[in-house]
Amino acid sequence: MSFQFDILESSGDARVGCLKTPHGEIQTPAFMPVGTQGSVKSVSPDQLLSVSVEVVLANAYHLSLRPGADIVAELGGLHRFMGWKRPILTDSGGFQVFSLAAIRKVTDRGVEFRSHIDGSLKFLGPSEAIDIQEKLGADMIMVLDDCPPYPADPDRLRSSLERSMNWAKQCQESKTRDDQLLLGIVQGGTDLGLRSECVSRLTELNFGAYAIGGVAVGEGWDKIRTIVAHTAPLLPQDRVRYLMGVASPGELVHAISCGIDLFDCVLPTRNGRNGVAFTSEGRVRIRGQIHKTDPGPLDPNCDCPACVGYSRGYLRHLSKSGELLSGTLVSLHNISFFQKLVARARQAIREDKLPELLAWCDEKYPVSVPV
Amino acid sequence: MSFQFDILESSGDARVGCLKTPHGEIQTPAFMPVGTQGSVKSVSPDQLLSVSVEVVLANAYHLSLRPGADIVAELGGLHRFMGWKRPILTDSGGFQVFSLAAIRKVTDRGVEFRSHIDGSLKFLGPSEAIDIQEKLGADMIMVLDDCPPYPADPDRLRSSLERSMNWAKQCQESKTRDDQLLLGIVQGGTDLGLRSECVSRLTELNFGAYAIGGVAVGEGWDKIRTIVAHTAPLLPQDRVRYLMGVASPGELVHAISCGIDLFDCVLPTRNGRNGVAFTSEGRVRIRGQIHKTDPGPLDPNCDCPACVGYSRGYLRHLSKSGELLSGTLVSLHNISFFQKLVARARQAIREDKLPELLAWCDEKYPVSVPV
Repeated sequence: MSFQFDILESSGDARVGCLKTPHGEIQTPAFMPVGTQGSVKSVSPDQLLSVSVEVVLANAYHLSLRPGADIVAELGGLHRFMGWKRPILTDSGGFQVFSLAAIRKVTDRGVEFRSHIDGSLKFLGPSEAIDIQEKLGADMIMVLDDCPPYPADPDRLRSSLERSMNWAKQCQESKTRDDQLLLGIVQGGTDLGLRSECVSRLTELNFGAYAIGGVAVGEGWDKIRTIVAHTAPLLPQDRVRYLMGVASPGELVHAISCGIDLFDCVLPTRNGRNGVAFTSEGRVRIRGQIHKTDPGPLDPNCDCPACVGYSRGYLRHLSKSGELLSGTLVSLHNISFFQKLVARARQAIREDKLPELLAWCDEKYPVSVPV
Repeated sequence: MSFQFDILESSGDARVGCLKTPHGEIQTPAFMPVGTQGSVKSVSPDQLLSVSVEVVLANAYHLSLRPGADIVAELGGLHRFMGWKRPILTDSGGFQVFSLAAIRKVTDRGVEFRSHIDGSLKFLGPSEAIDIQEKLGADMIMVLDDCPPYPADPDRLRSSLERSMNWAKQCQESKTRDDQLLLGIVQGGTDLGLRSECVSRLTELNFGAYAIGGVAVGEGWDKIRTIVAHTAPLLPQDRVRYLMGVASPGELVHAISCGIDLFDCVLPTRNGRNGVAFTSEGRVRIRGQIHKTDPGPLDPNCDCPACVGYSRGYLRHLSKSGELLSGTLVSLHNISFFQKLVARARQAIREDKLPELLAWCDEKYPVSVPV
């Protein structure tokens, strides 16, 4: 068995688990920093290790366009390519092909599109998505799905669901490697009936793990919470559950309380590069005048390299001066914040105190404030 | 005694030494990576330590304009501000004020100019330059000098020399801290007579160490070599000699053979951000098609983190994709290259083999190829 998922503790629907992969264990709930193009932006693998990251995400769409999956394979696969020895998950590229590329044609076979990099004509179908992800060689890979925009009319939601289910099955059939865990993706938009139907049809196919996709596409926090609260408990208890693209602290802890195990989001690194930090005292905009002569750390309750080594005054100076080290340090801190948040969630589950943690998140990171 | 300079070995005019400073020892000849705004661009202090950097340079002009010398002082001084515990040298800002700022007026008292950041009116004279550098608190500080452009007519060279000598004396008189080593700067352009005169007048003032300034301003490698070969041996044997802003490998080793101890240059980091690497096999442009599937390291003879952890194929991908990690890794390697080059020079001096090292540099980094 290349993979094993054990639930160690639970509290309501929430659970603490451990996922064993060919590249090591992941303590769940876990947060995956995003390395779209094979690099977590402005942070090195050593720095990721220094803040206890166990798993990162990369994107099959981006890597297949540049440098190309064959080249990554020739260079020893994604782990060796990136210099990251721990687990990796690759997204199939469904979301990217529907959001970034200029689409020429979508059929049941797949999507014909133009690369957003050089405009060249490409084709991505379920078997191509699996082929690419097998060449990349991540530990966890995703089915190709048809990602409808938000809002989408019922017909579009229905047809996209049908297509996604066909593709999910084809992905499963195309898969040849047994050292990769293939995740099915629940679609259905904000229609809870469709979400339920999608879960039934996917679980019939019996995937090794499941993701909730098609969220955080503009529907707002309330709807995300509703979708997650409805969908997560329907998924098989004994399989890893991954909520795609969500990482506001409150959403994350709410989703954990619904039984989600895995998260990813670009927020820690994107905000980091813009000088916005997640701290134990709430959001900090490091460029603010108020930090000009502040000798204290970004977060007094953090032991990450950025907080141990540097003052707010210095980080403000770096950010105002356009120094690249600013993006590195604030991103690293933000990643550390999310690692600590999921660690706190694991502890809270053990102590039946998840509601307290959720209340803390909602107080420090109110949903009314856009991220 | 806060400072002590011991010459441990010599070979011709070249010497191996050790400079003791309040923040630790510097093995000379030494290379200083440049952290103009208080950060060696895209590289963290931890990463600098990982490639054995002993001293970095920062710029008083830039730091005085942003965030301001008082703010750096309030935040504990430059070492604490930057998170760098080893020695620092600050340049006075003479070169920057004459090359970057919009000058309104130059008098014997100093320079009135507009900040290149916000256009505000500023004044920098010798006592201001020392005051700023005392607030910053580097281990080594520089006199303010009048830096003529290249080419400059004899009158301009003469008047700039007179002014620089006056300012050097005033800097010396303004200095109050005894834990900082003040370096006098030899000017005189390409006029060797003026260079000699400048050395006599500066050494009469008896500085703790000396720099050769006004080189690498467009005069070309031949003239730089001539100026250095003429000037370095005139400087007192028992004082550190610093050649400002020069770091082509051949120039550096030639200068070492003339008795220079200290170097700085932005080349390793600037080239690093542009994907150009200094390697033991010559210059490598990492974006080249040839590296596309190359599994080998940037430099097979290097043990820096970039060479140990990553392939040329990956570094090419990062650089082509605009990933910031590319600038970090190639800069780090380039800094490591210059650390190794000065270490090789120290060894070559011990073994009387500097000409062999110079020949190697001139072969791998021919002066005919622009840097």
